[in-house]
Amino acid sequence: MRQYRRAWLGGDLTAGLVVGIMIIPQSMAYAMLAGLPVQIGLYASLLPLLGYALFGSSMTMSVGPVAVTGLMTATLLSPLAVAGSADYLQLAIWLALLSGVMLFAFGLLRLGFLANFLSHPVINGFISGAAILIVLSQLPKLFGLPGWPDSPAALLAGWQRSNTVVLGMGLLALGWLLYARHGLAAQLQRIGLSAALAGLLAKLAPLVVVVLGVLVTWRADLAAQGVPVVGSIPAGLPALVWQTPDMASLRSLLLPAVLISLVSFVESVSIAQSLARRKRQSIDPDRELLGLGAANLGAALSGGFAVCGGFSRSSVNIEAGANTPLAGVISAAVIGLILISLAPMLAWLPQVVLAAVILVAVVPLIDLASLRRAWRYDRAEGLTLLGTALGVLLLGIEAGIVLGICCSIIAQLWRGSRPHVAVVGRVPDTHYFRNTKRHLVETEPHLLALRIDENIFFANTKAVEQAIYQALGDYPDTREVLLILSAVNHIDSTGLDMLSELTEGLKERDIGLHLAEVKGPVMDQLQHTDWIGRQIGQVFPSTDIAFNTLGKVANRAPEHSGE
Amino acid sequence: MRQYRRAWLGGDLTAGLVVGIMIIPQSMAYAMLAGLPVQIGLYASLLPLLGYALFGSSMTMSVGPVAVTGLMTATLLSPLAVAGSADYLQLAIWLALLSGVMLFAFGLLRLGFLANFLSHPVINGFISGAAILIVLSQLPKLFGLPGWPDSPAALLAGWQRSNTVVLGMGLLALGWLLYARHGLAAQLQRIGLSAALAGLLAKLAPLVVVVLGVLVTWRADLAAQGVPVVGSIPAGLPALVWQTPDMASLRSLLLPAVLISLVSFVESVSIAQSLARRKRQSIDPDRELLGLGAANLGAALSGGFAVCGGFSRSSVNIEAGANTPLAGVISAAVIGLILISLAPMLAWLPQVVLAAVILVAVVPLIDLASLRRAWRYDRAEGLTLLGTALGVLLLGIEAGIVLGICCSIIAQLWRGSRPHVAVVGRVPDTHYFRNTKRHLVETEPHLLALRIDENIFFANTKAVEQAIYQALGDYPDTREVLLILSAVNHIDSTGLDMLSELTEGLKERDIGLHLAEVKGPVMDQLQHTDWIGRQIGQVFPSTDIAFNTLGKVANRAPEHSGE
Repeated sequence: MRQYRRAWLGGDLTAGLVVGIMIIPQSMAYAMLAGLPVQIGLYASLLPLLGYALFGSSMTMSVGPVAVTGLMTATLLSPLAVAGSADYLQLAIWLALLSGVMLFAFGLLRLGFLANFLSHPVINGFISGAAILIVLSQLPKLFGLPGWPDSPAALLAGWQRSNTVVLGMGLLALGWLLYARHGLAAQLQRIGLSAALAGLLAKLAPLVVVVLGVLVTWRADLAAQGVPVVGSIPAGLPALVWQTPDMASLRSLLLPAVLISLVSFVESVSIAQSLARRKRQSIDPDRELLGLGAANLGAALSGGFAVCGGFSRSSVNIEAGANTPLAGVISAAVIGLILISLAPMLAWLPQVVLAAVILVAVVPLIDLASLRRAWRYDRAEGLTLLGTALGVLLLGIEAGIVLGICCSIIAQLWRGSRPHVAVVGRVPDTHYFRNTKRHLVETEPHLLALRIDENIFFANTKAVEQAIYQALGDYPDTREVLLILSAVNHIDSTGLDMLSELTEGLKERDIGLHLAEVKGPVMDQLQHTDWIGRQIGQVFPSTDIAFNTLGKVANRAPEHSGE
Repeated sequence: MRQYRRAWLGGDLTAGLVVGIMIIPQSMAYAMLAGLPVQIGLYASLLPLLGYALFGSSMTMSVGPVAVTGLMTATLLSPLAVAGSADYLQLAIWLALLSGVMLFAFGLLRLGFLANFLSHPVINGFISGAAILIVLSQLPKLFGLPGWPDSPAALLAGWQRSNTVVLGMGLLALGWLLYARHGLAAQLQRIGLSAALAGLLAKLAPLVVVVLGVLVTWRADLAAQGVPVVGSIPAGLPALVWQTPDMASLRSLLLPAVLISLVSFVESVSIAQSLARRKRQSIDPDRELLGLGAANLGAALSGGFAVCGGFSRSSVNIEAGANTPLAGVISAAVIGLILISLAPMLAWLPQVVLAAVILVAVVPLIDLASLRRAWRYDRAEGLTLLGTALGVLLLGIEAGIVLGICCSIIAQLWRGSRPHVAVVGRVPDTHYFRNTKRHLVETEPHLLALRIDENIFFANTKAVEQAIYQALGDYPDTREVLLILSAVNHIDSTGLDMLSELTEGLKERDIGLHLAEVKGPVMDQLQHTDWIGRQIGQVFPSTDIAFNTLGKVANRAPEHSGE
């Protein structure tokens, strides 16, 4: 606090105001997505901002309800309670509480690295799958229906005037929001506003549909004609309540809390990192865990649901000039003021407006480009992405994520299990050695130099052994084998056993085995084994020296007269 | 068959006879261990030998009931039926059938490589854990008890004369078997036999306790006094019966069959490989699958239970001079003759004799040396071994194996997630580049050369990025970064995304990024990416050339006057 500079205040104030206004429709929309009353979204936008400001490491990230955690709350809780019931709300609060405790504990235990085990294809697949699920969940709201109709015929048979009204409002809202996203800023610039101001005003466009929606519904009394509205919202700030969850709920919420924590963390860290890069700052994953944990504890304490860093709100925050977490505090104050003063009016807000806000936000998350890119780069990664997305869609969020993690681990093992082993020779008149199959190189007649291009571990020991024996078959005059370990960063005990047996096998054929370019850490570990100690021949610092030395040794035999 | 040489016949005949006699007690013992009537063990020693002879690739491996598959049959089937019941026997036969079908199908599909995913620590841990389970299951039999007493007090309270008799017989049998294993051969040599003959006779020692046990129990009518005996055995060969399993049984046997197939395959392949090495032959894992599949189908067809390659029987086979699978056929004939002629007499065989045979066979499998070795080589591998063994002991065989596989995969990822990244410099007056922390080397003032000693993939992208930024902090004057990829055999899409962001980050600081020693396969994959195509600077074939070129470029700046 002492270090706060007055020059930062202007930016923080503007950003706080803009983000505060912008996230009102968002927060309500994501609460609706989570199957909760819309004010819960607003409650979840107060304390979390303060909690994150206290512990988080990103100066400009804005936390609150986001689409993915909204969806996860809905799908993880729906087997446990009826959406909209008091039990359901209680479970949603406890889910935030449990996830806050977990994230905070993970931060204290410095377990931030765990998020590294989610590969990009898994994250991208998950986001795309979740986005499709969200779109599917909101489409019926565009027609004013409580859920998907059994058939198109049923939809037409049950069609009423109110459905037409809702669909009309929905399409207008969608149109306005899309225009705000793609054309409004340019239009505002054309009428003379600065680029920055035009951009900020465009971000506030969702508020226009909210205000218009409320006004129209109220004046035309559309709620009475069957247009689904948000319904009465208690005025004022949420009461701070601590309710200790019972054991049975805790147990059933454990896995959901792990998953929502993991996803929130990965999402938030990647957002925080991309923000930090823009400002040339750096973030600390373990402090991010603490910040997110505090944010979720704050959400639970004020009767909100699970929160996480949001990409659009954080971008707007930084674009509007936020310098410090004070911007977040001001955003929270704006929402608090709205809750105290204007909450009762939101009762007339048509649900379809919030559905339109959600649809416009999540459709761009369905990312076919990343699928195409992953597929082109590596089939296994494309399949991982596709598998995760389909898993999320067809089997559910938990199963999809687990399936994705399994796919990416199996792909990694699979790659490691098929090592590239090259017979190398000297590039003429140099000290370099290259693959005989890719380059014109010189080899020694009785020396077989093999470069193993993979760590030697259980999944590939057989393959490495086979490749070596195969090379011996191709070069039957071999007297000395040189293994070049420049690309071997680790040898596990299964690999060591194989190498030891291989050395014995070669010895029986009267062939010596030598090593070159063993890396420091590998040598440290092998130092005390029988293999290095007794079984093998020499260990050379470079292939060049090994070639010179062994070339002579191998050619010493009577049937071959010198070089 | 046409290629059979007459010179092989002598060895095959001897080996066939010796192994045939030797495996009679073994087979009965392992059937008892599996919770089956002892003759089932003999039935499982006939057709499997022929089936394997037809399809297998090892010339000298002997298949039949072994301790580990006996134990697995018992633990996998005990939740499904009462040991000793007709249902239980039927399930055991179907388990062999299903496992035979799977192994044969895997062989046809050439899935032999799947066994590579069992690392040595997992296999060793599993064998040790299973051996301890077997010992625990046989100890009560040493006291003539049906199972473990509730307490030592209960044991003493219920003690009867028959318990003393059984314990006495058991200790005598154990003593004899241990002597046969460790001292008998030397003693026989001392009385003038050749080393080979003495060794073979010592292997037949178990038959002596079997014969003595039958004679004593019969003469003293010990069965009537409460000494548990094997009980009546139907004389003659088993009828060949094909019974199609019902769907419910098939479903419950599916996972057990997968596990028993996997373990049998791994066991058999490692035995076959060590045998093949002794005779300088080679084996084909896919043909081993076919051979084992046929063996298990044979076992099922003749009313036996699951079989696999046995280490002791195969060693004896090779030591006794076996040259071809004909030896196995002769062993089968020996057992068939015993079944036809002597089976009824085995009714008097005390169970404690078989328990002694089992104990002497499995205690050496509890392998503390491999735990010590793994622990010393790498803590993670020691923990994997220990975790597998404890998992098998405390959670059961399935859970233990799965736990072990998970441990070894996590250990592998964990290693990969902590890459060694070295700042390198030139070894004076050479073309070699080494870690600045381990060697006295020369560096260029504005060039940071980093060697990344690990494949770059999702689990370590953050760590690699961090290491590079850390090195930049240590060398703040850096103008050009050179990544030496000699030890990078693969870059996944998560890694590529990181490298691409890193390059942008460096560009913002006005630092260039270049590559050296990119491996052929890595370059092939990167060829069409934006990263190689547009973002990075130059790609050098060797660090030497890169150092010479970039050293000059980096030092071009005014504040530094040439080299």
